[in-house]
Amino acid sequence: MLKQYLLTPGPTPVPERVMLAMARPIVHHRMPAFTAIFNEAAEGLKWIFQTKQPVLQLAGSGTLAMEAAIVNTMKRGDKALCVVGGKFGERWRNICKAYGIETVNLDVEWGHAVDPQAVKAALDADDKITAVFSQANESSTGVRHPVEEIAKLTATRERVINVVDAVSALGAFDLPMDKAGFDVLITGSQKALMLPPGQAYIALSDKAWARTESSDLPKFYADLKREKKAQSGGETAYTPAVTLTIGLVESLRMLKEEGLENVFARHDQLARATRAAVEALGCKLYAPTAPSPTVTSVWGPTGLDTGKIVKQLRDKYGVSITGGQDAVKGKIFRVAHLGYFGVFDILTSVTALEMALTDLGVQIQRGVGTAAAEAILAAGPPQK
Amino acid sequence: MLKQYLLTPGPTPVPERVMLAMARPIVHHRMPAFTAIFNEAAEGLKWIFQTKQPVLQLAGSGTLAMEAAIVNTMKRGDKALCVVGGKFGERWRNICKAYGIETVNLDVEWGHAVDPQAVKAALDADDKITAVFSQANESSTGVRHPVEEIAKLTATRERVINVVDAVSALGAFDLPMDKAGFDVLITGSQKALMLPPGQAYIALSDKAWARTESSDLPKFYADLKREKKAQSGGETAYTPAVTLTIGLVESLRMLKEEGLENVFARHDQLARATRAAVEALGCKLYAPTAPSPTVTSVWGPTGLDTGKIVKQLRDKYGVSITGGQDAVKGKIFRVAHLGYFGVFDILTSVTALEMALTDLGVQIQRGVGTAAAEAILAAGPPQK
Repeated sequence: MLKQYLLTPGPTPVPERVMLAMARPIVHHRMPAFTAIFNEAAEGLKWIFQTKQPVLQLAGSGTLAMEAAIVNTMKRGDKALCVVGGKFGERWRNICKAYGIETVNLDVEWGHAVDPQAVKAALDADDKITAVFSQANESSTGVRHPVEEIAKLTATRERVINVVDAVSALGAFDLPMDKAGFDVLITGSQKALMLPPGQAYIALSDKAWARTESSDLPKFYADLKREKKAQSGGETAYTPAVTLTIGLVESLRMLKEEGLENVFARHDQLARATRAAVEALGCKLYAPTAPSPTVTSVWGPTGLDTGKIVKQLRDKYGVSITGGQDAVKGKIFRVAHLGYFGVFDILTSVTALEMALTDLGVQIQRGVGTAAAEAILAAGPPQK
Repeated sequence: MLKQYLLTPGPTPVPERVMLAMARPIVHHRMPAFTAIFNEAAEGLKWIFQTKQPVLQLAGSGTLAMEAAIVNTMKRGDKALCVVGGKFGERWRNICKAYGIETVNLDVEWGHAVDPQAVKAALDADDKITAVFSQANESSTGVRHPVEEIAKLTATRERVINVVDAVSALGAFDLPMDKAGFDVLITGSQKALMLPPGQAYIALSDKAWARTESSDLPKFYADLKREKKAQSGGETAYTPAVTLTIGLVESLRMLKEEGLENVFARHDQLARATRAAVEALGCKLYAPTAPSPTVTSVWGPTGLDTGKIVKQLRDKYGVSITGGQDAVKGKIFRVAHLGYFGVFDILTSVTALEMALTDLGVQIQRGVGTAAAEAILAAGPPQK
């Protein structure tokens, strides 16, 4: 038996309580029993989005919600400013392109956060830009972007909205939608919300909802006005992913029991422990200036294809982490601390890494990564 | 304890084996363990679609697959012939409209199947029509449309494809894609495939795939060319509904164990028993000339709002069936026999109906519906 440990930044592990809730007999989505479940999930989503706006549930992956953000708030002739510093930034650009929306690309060196001054300069230079698209957390590089600073820039510009992909961020660190002034905020089920993939969530500010009135891009399944109307009545326009809504109620209850501040502090603590461990092992952080609270990206030891580390961890130890994608494939590896992660998931990653690196001939001292992590984790789970 | 019986035409009951399979720990969708699962599901889908074509798995509801069918095979200036004889026929028209595709509507009286001669006449009258959209089973009315006849009409027309929504049909009665010549065939997870909602499946003929090369409607999440490329490599373009793919492997195994012929014969037997029972109770079939093998629609007793029957069944007996939608709301009720349904699910519906009708003051003789159903069901499950 090679016991399996899923320690990836999405899908993330699903708590036993949630798995059991989802294994219950199916409920019909147009019946009162489901409406009660749906409404509890909808209220919980408002709580975790920190918004008074309705948070819509969509049957699909995060990419569907990204597409919905574009086709509902943009119109022909609009220009989009896309912050592109990783695979998901590129996705914003690609979806815009598919719908004929011209993009201005703010290319950011991978591993770095966008400079808000560069966003300001781009907005000042082109008044045809009507939206800024970015990631709260670019999970392909493990970078946290300053989306609150971007929101300040768009708040003073009547014709510009900010759209934040928080798929690998929301519920893991503080992204208070209404307070920060995010106009569109998106997440997915399989990250901090501790569910299997298959459901996405999206909320719009009043400013963004106003834009849906003049948006002229074609849409049907992703039509948010139709969903808003249906969901205000406790059901969805089309058949929802019923089991995920049932699971969502359970996972939101767990997060409420822990408390939002503690959830954020836990992610921060696990992230700090992970960074301390890999640095103690002599590895260099890939994103030292803006490290993500949900996934730590690390340069591989010089000359070593990080794909080999990922494979060794998976095949010999049953530990699944992720490597680099696209431009940094083979160059970095990524250790997750997102969602249903506790102290010993981090220590599993770190001890497995110590063994795998040694297996692959990297000169490290066993136990030094572990010691560095323990020093931070011994404080116990955050309790505020 | 009011024990609940979900006897609706979607979501349909999920077998215990499938629920347990889906309750297993989550698997990462970019790892070899998932590829093996994904490929088994993909092969099983080809078997149940009766096609050599790849059957693509989409994270979303059946409506997403309907939209995908349109945006991938149509181009600006094309006209669509939509068979509209119920709520889902109207959906074809509405999605076409959302994408600027002009429609010719072949309106069919609700409760009746389309006449293939009317389809032929419409095609002959307008050579700008490049596709016929219809339902194999219009679940809002409980009607089976002659989609094989429509396929014969389009087969001889080089520029016309036929697109079949088989969401509430595929896997319940014989729809052999390659043999019948369906160009696009669609289904969803929550019907005959016995899964929770949240995944849709779509296959295209060579003729339909050729159309994707010239299709110029905007798409991203529903881009089937991108999905075909990704799925030929054992993964999806975007994060899939992992648990549903895992469940699909299990439900397809169950269907294979039963055998496709027996699955179809079981649905036919249950449908005949249901029709015999309601007629014995003095109720009139809503669609006597083209009754659906998956859902039986029935006129309510004169003067009685069928919503009251549905409510009585649900609130007093815990039995969930469905009423009429839109134009026939309050006028019909619908008894399902779709997916994980056996003999005693039908007898539950029939006996509950006998009790509810009596409660509501309808003069019926208790047991006559049951007797009529038993006479058909006593033959035992079909074994070919």
